[in-house]
Amino acid sequence: MQIDNAIHRIKAAVGAKGWSENSTELIPSMMYSVGCPPGEAKLFVSPLTTEEVSQVMALCNQANIPVVPQGGNTGMCGGAIPDPSKTSVILSLRRMNNVRDLSTLDYTITVEAGCILQDIQGAAEQANRFFPLSLGAEGSCQIGGNLATNAGGINVLRYGNTRDLALGLEVVLPDGTVLNGLRRLKKDNTGYDLKHLFIGAEGTMGIITAAVLKLFPYPQSRSTAFCAIVDLESSLSLLAMARELSGDQISSFELIPRIALETVAKHRDDIQLPFSPGEAEWYVLMEISTSRKNDDLGSLNELILGEAIDAGIISNAVIAQSEKQKNGLWAIREALVEVQKEEGYSIKHDVSVPINRIPELIHLACERVLAICPGIRPYPFGHVGDGNIHFNFSPPPTLPAKKFLEFIDQINQIVYDIVDSLDGSFSAEHGIGQTKVAALETYRSATEVALMKNIKQLVDPRYLMNPGKLFPDPAFNSEAL
Amino acid sequence: MQIDNAIHRIKAAVGAKGWSENSTELIPSMMYSVGCPPGEAKLFVSPLTTEEVSQVMALCNQANIPVVPQGGNTGMCGGAIPDPSKTSVILSLRRMNNVRDLSTLDYTITVEAGCILQDIQGAAEQANRFFPLSLGAEGSCQIGGNLATNAGGINVLRYGNTRDLALGLEVVLPDGTVLNGLRRLKKDNTGYDLKHLFIGAEGTMGIITAAVLKLFPYPQSRSTAFCAIVDLESSLSLLAMARELSGDQISSFELIPRIALETVAKHRDDIQLPFSPGEAEWYVLMEISTSRKNDDLGSLNELILGEAIDAGIISNAVIAQSEKQKNGLWAIREALVEVQKEEGYSIKHDVSVPINRIPELIHLACERVLAICPGIRPYPFGHVGDGNIHFNFSPPPTLPAKKFLEFIDQINQIVYDIVDSLDGSFSAEHGIGQTKVAALETYRSATEVALMKNIKQLVDPRYLMNPGKLFPDPAFNSEAL
Repeated sequence: MQIDNAIHRIKAAVGAKGWSENSTELIPSMMYSVGCPPGEAKLFVSPLTTEEVSQVMALCNQANIPVVPQGGNTGMCGGAIPDPSKTSVILSLRRMNNVRDLSTLDYTITVEAGCILQDIQGAAEQANRFFPLSLGAEGSCQIGGNLATNAGGINVLRYGNTRDLALGLEVVLPDGTVLNGLRRLKKDNTGYDLKHLFIGAEGTMGIITAAVLKLFPYPQSRSTAFCAIVDLESSLSLLAMARELSGDQISSFELIPRIALETVAKHRDDIQLPFSPGEAEWYVLMEISTSRKNDDLGSLNELILGEAIDAGIISNAVIAQSEKQKNGLWAIREALVEVQKEEGYSIKHDVSVPINRIPELIHLACERVLAICPGIRPYPFGHVGDGNIHFNFSPPPTLPAKKFLEFIDQINQIVYDIVDSLDGSFSAEHGIGQTKVAALETYRSATEVALMKNIKQLVDPRYLMNPGKLFPDPAFNSEAL
Repeated sequence: MQIDNAIHRIKAAVGAKGWSENSTELIPSMMYSVGCPPGEAKLFVSPLTTEEVSQVMALCNQANIPVVPQGGNTGMCGGAIPDPSKTSVILSLRRMNNVRDLSTLDYTITVEAGCILQDIQGAAEQANRFFPLSLGAEGSCQIGGNLATNAGGINVLRYGNTRDLALGLEVVLPDGTVLNGLRRLKKDNTGYDLKHLFIGAEGTMGIITAAVLKLFPYPQSRSTAFCAIVDLESSLSLLAMARELSGDQISSFELIPRIALETVAKHRDDIQLPFSPGEAEWYVLMEISTSRKNDDLGSLNELILGEAIDAGIISNAVIAQSEKQKNGLWAIREALVEVQKEEGYSIKHDVSVPINRIPELIHLACERVLAICPGIRPYPFGHVGDGNIHFNFSPPPTLPAKKFLEFIDQINQIVYDIVDSLDGSFSAEHGIGQTKVAALETYRSATEVALMKNIKQLVDPRYLMNPGKLFPDPAFNSEAL
C-alpha cells in the first residue's frame, strides 16, 4: 500500500479527534526527552478503542510505516521519542483511559493502557484497595508505558515491579492482530506465558492496549522512621532484620547519603531535618505499613529500632509521631533529586546489584571515579531493598560545566564495568530506550542478545515497532538521517 | 553425526556414573505417569555439571536425537515421559543437586535444577529463611521440574507461583549453548525478560540447570482455623475480609466440601473432625502466618472470625489452640485426596477461574455433569485464593467402574467449556504435558497458539526438546508408532 493512501485511511479509522499532523501541537511534550535528540513524526494518532489501534497497526504494517507507541512520555531513556526522519506515526494511548472493571472480591482492576497511574491508584483506593505502583511521574505517566518499561518505583521491595503486578494483557501485534490475554487468573499453565514478552519490551513487539492488574488491601496505618546508620554495610543488616521482625511489612527502605542531607539543608529552608547532616555518613528512611486492623505499628517500629541500636546497626533514629512528621521525613527523600540540580549538571546512573553487594558498588565506584575526576561529589541514593542505586555525581565545585561533561563517557564506563563485575544491571528500572542501546550489546552476553534479537525479528520482522529502541534494525543506517 | 557415534560420545561426556541403557533400572519411576502410555528411551543420562549438560545437548542436536528432560517425574500430565519409540535420551537433572549459594542478607538461594524441593526448604530454614513453594510431591520433586511446570501448591495465595519466586535462570539451549541469566537482581530492565520463556515451558525450549530463588523471613507463628461457611459465595467474602483485617498475611485458604468431610469421616478413624460433616455444605481451612516478633495471631484470628460471624459469612469456626490441633486440621485437608480413592476411580480437573466466578463454576459444573450422569458425586476442593479448584467427581455408588470411565471425555468437555465461558484456564497448576495437548489448541485463541508455536520453532526448530509435549512436531505422525 502507498504511504499516502495508508495515512488517509488511518485518519479515517481514528476520526477527526484522533489525529494531528501539526507538530507544534506535539512539541515539546511528544518529541523531547532528556539525553536524546528531539524527534519528528509524520502523523500523531490517538485511537479510542482497541479495534482502532488494530486498524492503525494493520495499515502501518501494509504501508511499511514505523510506529512509535507513546504513553505519558515520562521515560528517562527516550523510549517514546521518534527519530528525526519524520517518517513514523506516533500512536498515543491517551484517549484509551477507561477502567474496564474493578473487582474487590478478586482484588483485580482491568484498565486501558492510557489510564494515568494516579487515576488507577485513586480508583483502587475508592474501593478500599491498593494499587502499589508509585513513582515520581505518577501524575502523568500512563499504565501502558509503565508496563512497556516494567516500571519500578518506591514500593517494589514489598510488591514487586510492574511486571509482578500484571495478571493479563491485551496486545495489538505489529500486523494488527489482537492478542487477547486479559485473563484475571492467578494460576494458568497453558503454554508459554506470552505477556512477559511484551512487558518491559518498550513497545518494540506490539502495543499494550489493556491490562488486568493485581490489587491489595489498602494500608490502614504506616509508621515512618529516619535512621542514622553506623556504616553502609549496616543498612543491609537493618533491612534484613526489619523484614524479619515486621512480618515482612516493610514497604519502603531508602538509602540517603550525608551529602544529600547537606544539599537539602543548603537549598531548602522549608524542610526540617531530623538530625544535623553530620550525625552520620549514611541514613535510611524506612516505612512499615499494613492493612491490619488496630495494628500498633509505632510500637513495632520502636521494637525494631531498639534491637537495631542494641545490635550496633544504627546510632540514632526518629519515628514520626504524626502525619505531618511523616510527610516531613518523606519531603527529604522527595527533595533529594531536585536540590542536586542546584549543584550543577549531574551525571546519573540507574543501576542495580545483588543487595549484599551494594557496599562494594558504592565504595568501588566512589574510589575509581574520584581517581579520574578529583573533587567530584558522589551522590548515591535509592532503593536498597531492590539493590537499586541511583548513582549520581555532582561536579567538583570549581570545575566548569563543559569540562565536567567531558567525563560522562568515562564515568559511565567505570560505573557500568563495576556493576557488571558485581553481576548487576546497568539499567535497573529505567530501561534501554535510545540512550542505552550500546550498553545492552556490551553488558549482556552474546547468547542473550542473539536470542532477544531473534524474538524481535520473529514478532516484528520489518522492525516497524518503535524503531531505534532496544534493537535497532541492522539494515538501517542512522548516520544517513 | 551418526546416532551411534553421538551416543558413544554422550556416554564419554557424562562418565560411567552418568548413564544407563538398562530400562529395568528406569521403570517404572522414569517411564510411567498417570494418564499417558508408558515410555521407552534409548539412553538415560544424568550429567553432573552444566558443562556436561551442554555437551550432551550439543551431541543430541548434531545427531538429531530427541531429549526428554526429567526432574523428580512427579508431574500429573506425562510431561517428563518419553514416547514409546525408544529413540530419545532422557536427561535427568538428579545428580545436579547442589545449593550453590545462600545469602541471608539478600534473601536469595541459588540452586541446581536437581535439588529436591524439600531440601531447598530445609536449607532456607537452617538460615532462618523461608522458601514458600510447597506441594504434595515436595519430598521427591525437583526444583528444575517445578520451574519447568511453574508449579503452584498451597502457598500461592501469599507468595505466588514458582515463576514469581525465580529471579534468575541458567538454561542450556537445544544446541548446547549455555544461557547464563543467574542474576540475583530484583530490578533489571535490560531487554526482554528471557527467563519467562523457559519457566512453564515444560522442557520444550531448553534445560533449566540452575536458578536463583527468592527467600522470605521464616514464619515464627501461625494460627489455623476451620470454618463452616454459610454458602459458597461467603467463602469469597471471608477471604477478601481476612486479607484486609490480617494485613494480607493469609497464607492458606482451602475450600472443602461437605462430601470430603463425610469421606474422611468414613475412611479415617484416626482423624478427628472439628464438626459433624452435616454442620454445613462448605468449609474453609484458613491459616495466618507471620515472622513478626511477639505477634498474637490467635487473637487476630478471633477478631477476623468474630467479624465474619457478625457479618453472617460463617456459621461456626474453631481455632487450633496447639501445634497438635493445627496438624489435626491440616490432616483433614491432606487426607481429602487419599480418601477419595476409596470411593472408586475419580475423574479429575485442575482448573482456575477469576476468584469471584468460583461459585458459578461449581454450580454450573455440578448441575450439568449430574444431568448426564445421575448420581455422580462432585468433589470440588482447593485453593480459593488462587481461583484454583481441583474439580473431581466420584462415581455414582452403584455404577460399574467401566461404565463410569465412558463418561470421561464428555465430563471433561463440560467442565472445560464452563471454565472457558468464565474466562478461566483448563490447566491451572498441572500444565499441559502429553495429556492436555488437544485442549491447548481448543481453549486458547488461534493467535496465542500461533505465537507460541512460532517461538517454539524459533528456539527448537527441529522439535528435539521434549517431543510430543505442549506442541508436538507437526511433521511427526504419532500414529506410526
